[in-house]
Amino acid sequence: MYRDMFKVAVIGYAGDIDKPPVSHVADIALSIGKALGRERYVVLTGGRDGVMHLVSKGAAEEGSIVIGITPYASGGITPYAIEISTGLDMAMRSGVLLNSANAVISIGGAAGTSVEIFMAYSYRKPLILMRGTGGWTDRIIKILEEDTTLGGDSLDYRLAGGVYIADSVDEAMKILERIRANRE
Amino acid sequence: MYRDMFKVAVIGYAGDIDKPPVSHVADIALSIGKALGRERYVVLTGGRDGVMHLVSKGAAEEGSIVIGITPYASGGITPYAIEISTGLDMAMRSGVLLNSANAVISIGGAAGTSVEIFMAYSYRKPLILMRGTGGWTDRIIKILEEDTTLGGDSLDYRLAGGVYIADSVDEAMKILERIRANRE
Amino acid sequence: MYRDMFKVAVIGYAGDIDKPPVSHVADIALSIGKALGRERYVVLTGGRDGVMHLVSKGAAEEGSIVIGITPYASGGITPYAIEISTGLDMAMRSGVLLNSANAVISIGGAAGTSVEIFMAYSYRKPLILMRGTGGWTDRIIKILEEDTTLGGDSLDYRLAGGVYIADSVDEAMKILERIRANRE
Amino acid sequence: MYRDMFKVAVIGYAGDIDKPPVSHVADIALSIGKALGRERYVVLTGGRDGVMHLVSKGAAEEGSIVIGITPYASGGITPYAIEISTGLDMAMRSGVLLNSANAVISIGGAAGTSVEIFMAYSYRKPLILMRGTGGWTDRIIKILEEDTTLGGDSLDYRLAGGVYIADSVDEAMKILERIRANRE
Repeated sequence: MYRDMFKVAVIGYAGDIDKPPVSHVADIALSIGKALGRERYVVLTGGRDGVMHLVSKGAAEEGSIVIGITPYASGGITPYAIEISTGLDMAMRSGVLLNSANAVISIGGAAGTSVEIFMAYSYRKPLILMRGTGGWTDRIIKILEEDTTLGGDSLDYRLAGGVYIADSVDEAMKILERIRANRE
Repeated sequence: MYRDMFKVAVIGYAGDIDKPPVSHVADIALSIGKALGRERYVVLTGGRDGVMHLVSKGAAEEGSIVIGITPYASGGITPYAIEISTGLDMAMRSGVLLNSANAVISIGGAAGTSVEIFMAYSYRKPLILMRGTGGWTDRIIKILEEDTTLGGDSLDYRLAGGVYIADSVDEAMKILERIRANRE
Repeated sequence: MYRDMFKVAVIGYAGDIDKPPVSHVADIALSIGKALGRERYVVLTGGRDGVMHLVSKGAAEEGSIVIGITPYASGGITPYAIEISTGLDMAMRSGVLLNSANAVISIGGAAGTSVEIFMAYSYRKPLILMRGTGGWTDRIIKILEEDTTLGGDSLDYRLAGGVYIADSVDEAMKILERIRANRE
Repeated sequence: MYRDMFKVAVIGYAGDIDKPPVSHVADIALSIGKALGRERYVVLTGGRDGVMHLVSKGAAEEGSIVIGITPYASGGITPYAIEISTGLDMAMRSGVLLNSANAVISIGGAAGTSVEIFMAYSYRKPLILMRGTGGWTDRIIKILEEDTTLGGDSLDYRLAGGVYIADSVDEAMKILERIRANRE
């Protein structure tokens, strides 16, 4: 019944959606949420504010099931996700988020997002970096393009691959579709 | 949107559904799943076999959203739940399951279920014990009825309350409805 | 170097050491700590107050290495243990404590201790219950002695064994010595 | 008794100590272990092979208490650390390692080390990057020196500080001494 459901985690800046850095990526976060919702992906986020809230809102309004993986026992912030409270601290709860995903999309992001980018790679989850969204997403893209030892699609010398760069929401959705097709 | 969703975790025996001890409680597990599904509770289980599978099946077939909280990175067993993989071992993943629940129902159960019964109480989650289902559910009922220091509805000297005994699926659903009403 | 070190976790009542229920078991907790310290076991506790503090004090003063496994990022309470902060909530951090132990001793205990008793059994760790210390330690002893389906040394129908009852600190130390000898 | 003990976590490449990339940093890893041991810091590592083993060996041989924080229930690899088994997967167990540290030293490192570098910063732990050790340690140093928005000692726009670059073991030890002095 649910077996074929493909789960996409979206990670990125936390914080007030009307203030930088979240406000700079608010449109793209909401657009990605809506695009995921239209395709009926199950959407996973960290269940809190910033990019997490905007993606959850977009996806839930389009009809996706949205699950927010939150830290500790406390209430999440976004009302657009079913909350799974982990009893874990901020960084460790990201392990639950990323273990559960079939693919990951990254939008901007501070140090917590960077923890998640490298966790996703460690768990061998396909990872799509949204170019132009700032923060660690763009810093990692720059490294991938400059550091030839990484082969362009890997985050360490093991060259496990699975890292993609997308220039638009449409391109991200096409990459996602290919990842899903390869999995089946 | 999802804010008012009430999440019910069901815990109990793991194992082959055609063999004891699961086979002894198969009917009640499926019935509880169906009853939760009809009421559109979000249903949480451990996502694996035994009681977890039967409850997930009943609830999903009746139309509930069912989420299975599984250990490690590995695949769950029941196809009737959206899998959240925790990266945690069997016992610690129960912390995610119970932190996330608004109420808990217990059916029979070996040592792992007993961990969950006491975790639920530690997290101050309302807990419904199904009488006659064997294992630690019935052992705890016996203690509650014999050990007068526990006040009949608590699992330690702190007397925090919140433990209920149900003699039927109908009674469990009525208790659940009262818990939900008190919460709102 | 450290490979042969045998780690003993001690679990039991939290709380003020001068008030019940901790005060009722303060002597035995300190004695067990001292006995473990004299034998140079590595001692693991939850790193906080009550039984955890008393055992840590006894063991550290006799010269053992004592490690306290605490929840969240916050500081532990006992100064007699090297603190390992887990970033996990109270109940989940017990998973780290018990995964790490080669054997476990239980003294009294509220619901949190009961979580630990059943976790220890789930992890197949030898578990020594101190008779007469109250709480869940004595409740489990009573069940073991009355419920013939458990075989006297097991906590569920799988009959995995490994549960011991001790009437004195000396007896506990002798059981521990046999467990350690069998392991080597 | 243990209250004043200062715990230093060392992170870096896993893998065979006789093969690249670990072999390239074997001398410095062992030297750091020895230097930490001589100062009687409590040393924390991931308890496995590569840099973790070499640091543990150096520190234990010089007389420090060394604790290895390992994933799952399985045995660690280095015999030079007291093993704390977390029941958590590789990446999440790093949360226990870094929550527990008063300061962190990073040597080279693949994606798992990068998870730890950003976790350390997220937890506001002082972090010393060893220049010239390759991998993500050197990649992060390069970013710190080129990306002027980070202020030279921070890993995101919040500019929390606390990131240090060391060119030698001696310099790392001096930085550590200042961190310890500021804490007291």
